[in-house]
Amino acid sequence: MEQRRVYLDNSATTVVDSEVIKEMQPYFSDIYGNASSFHYFGRQAKTALDNARKKTAKLLNSSSEEIFFTGCGTESDNIAIFGILNAYGEKGHVITSRIEHHAVLYSCKHLEVNGYEVTYLDVDEDGVVSVEDFKKAVKDNTLLVTIMHANNEVGSIQPIEKIASELKKINGKRKKKIYFHTDAVQTAGKLYLDVKKLGIDLLAISAHKFNGPKGIGALYIKNGTNILPIAFGGHHENGLRPGTENIPYISGLAKALEISNAKIEEYNKRVFALREKLKEGILNAIPDVTINGSGSRAVSNILNVSFNYIEGEALLLMLDMKGVAVSTGSACAAGSSGPSHVLSAMGVNPVASQGAIRFSLGYHNTEEDVDYVLEVLPKVISSLRSMSPVRNQKTFENKE
Amino acid sequence: MEQRRVYLDNSATTVVDSEVIKEMQPYFSDIYGNASSFHYFGRQAKTALDNARKKTAKLLNSSSEEIFFTGCGTESDNIAIFGILNAYGEKGHVITSRIEHHAVLYSCKHLEVNGYEVTYLDVDEDGVVSVEDFKKAVKDNTLLVTIMHANNEVGSIQPIEKIASELKKINGKRKKKIYFHTDAVQTAGKLYLDVKKLGIDLLAISAHKFNGPKGIGALYIKNGTNILPIAFGGHHENGLRPGTENIPYISGLAKALEISNAKIEEYNKRVFALREKLKEGILNAIPDVTINGSGSRAVSNILNVSFNYIEGEALLLMLDMKGVAVSTGSACAAGSSGPSHVLSAMGVNPVASQGAIRFSLGYHNTEEDVDYVLEVLPKVISSLRSMSPVRNQKTFENKE
Ligand SMILES: Cc1ncc(COP(=O)(O)O)c(C=O)c1O
Ligand SMILES: Cc1ncc(COP(=O)(O)O)c(C=O)c1O
Repeated sequence: MEQRRVYLDNSATTVVDSEVIKEMQPYFSDIYGNASSFHYFGRQAKTALDNARKKTAKLLNSSSEEIFFTGCGTESDNIAIFGILNAYGEKGHVITSRIEHHAVLYSCKHLEVNGYEVTYLDVDEDGVVSVEDFKKAVKDNTLLVTIMHANNEVGSIQPIEKIASELKKINGKRKKKIYFHTDAVQTAGKLYLDVKKLGIDLLAISAHKFNGPKGIGALYIKNGTNILPIAFGGHHENGLRPGTENIPYISGLAKALEISNAKIEEYNKRVFALREKLKEGILNAIPDVTINGSGSRAVSNILNVSFNYIEGEALLLMLDMKGVAVSTGSACAAGSSGPSHVLSAMGVNPVASQGAIRFSLGYHNTEEDVDYVLEVLPKVISSLRSMSPVRNQKTFENKE
Repeated sequence: MEQRRVYLDNSATTVVDSEVIKEMQPYFSDIYGNASSFHYFGRQAKTALDNARKKTAKLLNSSSEEIFFTGCGTESDNIAIFGILNAYGEKGHVITSRIEHHAVLYSCKHLEVNGYEVTYLDVDEDGVVSVEDFKKAVKDNTLLVTIMHANNEVGSIQPIEKIASELKKINGKRKKKIYFHTDAVQTAGKLYLDVKKLGIDLLAISAHKFNGPKGIGALYIKNGTNILPIAFGGHHENGLRPGTENIPYISGLAKALEISNAKIEEYNKRVFALREKLKEGILNAIPDVTINGSGSRAVSNILNVSFNYIEGEALLLMLDMKGVAVSTGSACAAGSSGPSHVLSAMGVNPVASQGAIRFSLGYHNTEEDVDYVLEVLPKVISSLRSMSPVRNQKTFENKE
């Protein structure tokens, strides 16, 4: 019998929607021109590029010339951070949070090595930064704020609008504008992204998190923003991101965002119900668990749970043997050791952090998927805990 | 009646081979995991990634850990150049040629702005650099040599092996190694690339030039090379190129290179015959033309021709109306004005440079394609020349 498979790692990546695949198809075999070429084949490609840009712009409530296609979410973040700072041409201060994805976090570490000062804002126990902390962090030489929209490990949504409105007041009293970038990779397709309402200057998204292909991202850059490229070559993407345009994936990104946005309410209703079912089922059936982060302040598809006295990686592998795909923290951090920097920042103790698992739901998940997880998970936990030296010691202590 | 279409712009980009499309398909809908994930879906993706890397490595005669997948040819060049120089951590001297693609040329211009010294080697009338010039250009503080394998406008093949062997001697007498990068974007799939035989340290390729998808590149980096990333994020590609791996395209690149390499002799025989037919046909039927570069020192698929007293762009558009797709210079330089930097470096005079057209053949072109071009081209040239003020003046002068 074939192993039943339940994919609950949709924050790591998602399956490409069949309509998105259909959208991309013609650009491999028929409309294969280089969008920079002036002839028929090139103009066809250019039209597809323009259309995808218009569509993406509209879905983010921006204008076309504010949308730049990139090679991935990581690249969008890197262009935002280094592009803004290079354009300043002077070193200064950057504000970010302690729970950023490595694309932002390691960029900031690199800045520190290169003589920039970086403030890493703390988060509360739900994984949310404080607007007051942000206000206190601003310095005379602050050049850039980069705070993610929602975190990829616990789903916590940051008060981007409020920070932006405080920043607006601060910028009103300064000569040099402090720019505001947000990594919205985990919210695109899950929350309506309105760049005007958010009030940010730059916003990064990545198609593979909303049922588009891997290896394509976009960066919104507000008109009038002073930014320089971080790589050099042709005049593509208005000189900001050189390299022959990937028309299939660019069209796929726009289509995937369109599809996601069109069913955003249905999506959220659906994955929220599944997540709550999963959460209640876990809390009812398994002792010594804690939910990391509060669902009410987070995107609807992520459930981060600590199973105390267990190694998250062992649990991941045991669940995998039962066909259930989950993650410990983010996929991008896989391979790196040590406790999650996000859970640490939230004050989760090392034992709980060690036993943390991220379940991330997607549109394609079903009630049966959750039922299956709730069937296998308690058994797996029991058997792991019965082998756990820490747990046994605890039991022993309890007997004392 | 539908317009007949003849695509002769294969150096700008190529159609994706149907077998490559087939190769990529499963990774959109079935094997969609994140290669960094530890579960079944992730391991499937990781296996595909490993296999593509192995295949690519073998085709370039390197080992797997020397192959890094990137977002495009431009990115490969940028990582090579800035990655090597950042690892040196000191400013110094770089040697390149005057005929590089903008991915290298503009990177070098950026270096100059940032305090590096750059020597741009001249080329002869065929567009080939001289090994003697190279030897003379080396300085005490030279850190990097970056010279393309074949030029994208005229196809001229550079003496990479000879330069590498001279460099080896030079390096033997120095404490600090001078690294050698080559942009092989125009030769991958057209010449057998053997990194050991070439003797370089880094080599860039881009799939869309050999019937793979646009938006994926690879960079060979010799074991032991001291290089740093130019973007920051997850641990992908051994920490050198962060971002969730684009498994469909990575598999597609490997497949496309495999297919191209397997029929490389057939390909060259075929496109060479077509190019010679096209060249002879043009020379026989049209007066006042010059062939830029020598076919015998160039890749077999490019024919760069100057039609004197004509604007290349006007010719391009007229040919396009007849369904024939060609280019003036490189697609990546489209939109930039002024004469081609490559033809200028070759000493082509401005009038001839202005009327230059690149025909670039592909595996899919046929004798009928060339017949059709030879049918329409002379008429188009006649009518353009009859309207040309320069030509008429010339005619007038001749009468004097
Ligand atoms: C010689 C050469 N180098 C680099 C590139 C850039 O490749 P890509 O468009 O994949 O970035 C091209 C073509 O565009 C090229 O012809
Ligand atoms: C919050 C966040 N930012 C950035 C990224 C990087 O996106 P990509 O893998 O497309 O580079 C990810 C996921 O990998 C993410 O979750």
